Amino acid sequence: MRTIEWRNGIVSTIDQTRLPHDLVTFEMKNISEISEAIRDMRVRGAPLLGAVGAFGMALVAYYSKAGSKDRLIGELKKAAELLRRTRPTAVNLSWALDRILEATKEFSGNASDLAALVVEEAEKIAEEDVKLNRLIGKHGAALVHDGDVVLTHCNAGSLATVEYGTALGIVRTAWQEGKKIKVIATETRPKLQGARLTTYELKRDGIPVSLITDNMVGYVMYRHLVSKVVVGADRVVKDAVFNKIGTYGIAVLAKEHEIPFFVAAPKSTFDLEKTSAKVVIEERSPEEVTNVGSQRIAPQTVDVMNPAFDITPLEYVTAIICEDGILRENDFATFDSL
Amino acid sequence: MRTIEWRNGIVSTIDQTRLPHDLVTFEMKNISEISEAIRDMRVRGAPLLGAVGAFGMALVAYYSKAGSKDRLIGELKKAAELLRRTRPTAVNLSWALDRILEATKEFSGNASDLAALVVEEAEKIAEEDVKLNRLIGKHGAALVHDGDVVLTHCNAGSLATVEYGTALGIVRTAWQEGKKIKVIATETRPKLQGARLTTYELKRDGIPVSLITDNMVGYVMYRHLVSKVVVGADRVVKDAVFNKIGTYGIAVLAKEHEIPFFVAAPKSTFDLEKTSAKVVIEERSPEEVTNVGSQRIAPQTVDVMNPAFDITPLEYVTAIICEDGILRENDFATFDSL
Repeated sequence: MRTIEWRNGIVSTIDQTRLPHDLVTFEMKNISEISEAIRDMRVRGAPLLGAVGAFGMALVAYYSKAGSKDRLIGELKKAAELLRRTRPTAVNLSWALDRILEATKEFSGNASDLAALVVEEAEKIAEEDVKLNRLIGKHGAALVHDGDVVLTHCNAGSLATVEYGTALGIVRTAWQEGKKIKVIATETRPKLQGARLTTYELKRDGIPVSLITDNMVGYVMYRHLVSKVVVGADRVVKDAVFNKIGTYGIAVLAKEHEIPFFVAAPKSTFDLEKTSAKVVIEERSPEEVTNVGSQRIAPQTVDVMNPAFDITPLEYVTAIICEDGILRENDFATFDSL
Repeated sequence: MRTIEWRNGIVSTIDQTRLPHDLVTFEMKNISEISEAIRDMRVRGAPLLGAVGAFGMALVAYYSKAGSKDRLIGELKKAAELLRRTRPTAVNLSWALDRILEATKEFSGNASDLAALVVEEAEKIAEEDVKLNRLIGKHGAALVHDGDVVLTHCNAGSLATVEYGTALGIVRTAWQEGKKIKVIATETRPKLQGARLTTYELKRDGIPVSLITDNMVGYVMYRHLVSKVVVGADRVVKDAVFNKIGTYGIAVLAKEHEIPFFVAAPKSTFDLEKTSAKVVIEERSPEEVTNVGSQRIAPQTVDVMNPAFDITPLEYVTAIICEDGILRENDFATFDSL
């Protein structure tokens, strides 16, 4: 099942804040609706944010009354800046916006043809994501063996992508290949993507999954209950992987227990010009920490930190699985030249 | 303020499940009420469980109609077994029950004098806990310096003890000595003792505290925002410290970042005859993980792990602070002979 769809100027997607209790979709017809949905995390997941950003551009183009090609390009540039600001850390969103803008550059037709091209490019980005995930799944499944217990963090599944998933794409492929594997999913505070989304997806597919709180990772590793870690990524830079807060701690624990730590991410997540020091980590609202849903769990006015992502230096990463294959230490050294 | 009080056959204590929103006390008059309160974690914290167990024995003695000393001792033994089963990992509870039983052994008077002695012994255990915490605070504060940021996990504060706290006793003493320190409190899923209790206590005392989710520990260490870790303990054995789930992961991260990792615990927490392999880790109900308060956060029927404690081998522990002083690596080697 596709997480996002475009049909005649309507973008419909699953409301991820309503899962696992209710599977409902909602529609967006303009970029303020898109921006709001991204900010509220009704849509989330780095690859999916790429697709939703692209469809945001498609909406601008589809409904534009610009009349001229240049004016439409101006509108698209403005829209791209607005969408880009919604979430600063995950790079796929920026990548997709830039790809759309790039596609407009060489174009010499009129505004309505350009609009059609933007819609087409957005649909292509979404289609490609599905294919890339399948390739990542295929490459990564070679690393997963019968009897493995794979620990994953947050949700890098079909809900984080257009379909199939990155980290969970690997799990799915291994499972479809007949390997008897199990998954341990961390709940992933504060937004609980692991508890709400990863368990939901895997149960739907009949893949065995156990839920733990984030602070049980050390314990399950100490007890030899985990044989591999597979996570997604929001941005891969020259020296590190940015991913959901908590990833770094898991990577350190994996290294301490000599458990392979794999990152699954399409190349649209790569930003190899940059080092980690140059990337802004999104700080989200304190209420995400002091509340669970409507329920307040901490005293009023308590000081809170809420970084949405952390930084895992590549020395903790055993391999990165992308659509081209498996990148290891030797490949990391050539990140400059990729 | 005392967390627990005995007055003429009534044990009153703070309902810790109601904090931080409501500060309410409730009364217990028999050991089924005591057992239920322990199991539901309305009272929790290793040293406090010692006191509450002792007062449970005091209630049995106080209301006993045994008539003879031997029959009363029989009732006390039965009560001790019932109370001991409520929470298997924290050893202070068992320690206090055994201490009461021990006190009855040499006694040669009648049943009502023995009952008075049991009540007196329970009150002594509670009184001593306050003094021991002050001593731990004094010893430990020598390790905390102006400008330090102390990360703590769960609640090893006045609410976990009769008064003052172990880990937070150290923080309190350092603060009272005029050291400008700050605390980072992990929320401590699933029961959120950090978010609910540690922040509450420290705010009440005016000590600066920031709340983070458990999976942010790696990030704050990576960003050099933590200079010391101080936690409590539920049991110290020959080769390891048992403490709230999540402690082990913090200890590994502290070692990786060369941050001192301190454990604060009275000697009643020591169980140096045993090695970690011999200790049962309490597995609590799955609902603690799948729910936050009344709110369900995971799909129905998902498989869950919920160990309440984990095991931190002593190689990750910089020092243990007890009432006698500061124990380090060399002292750990003599644990057999202590």
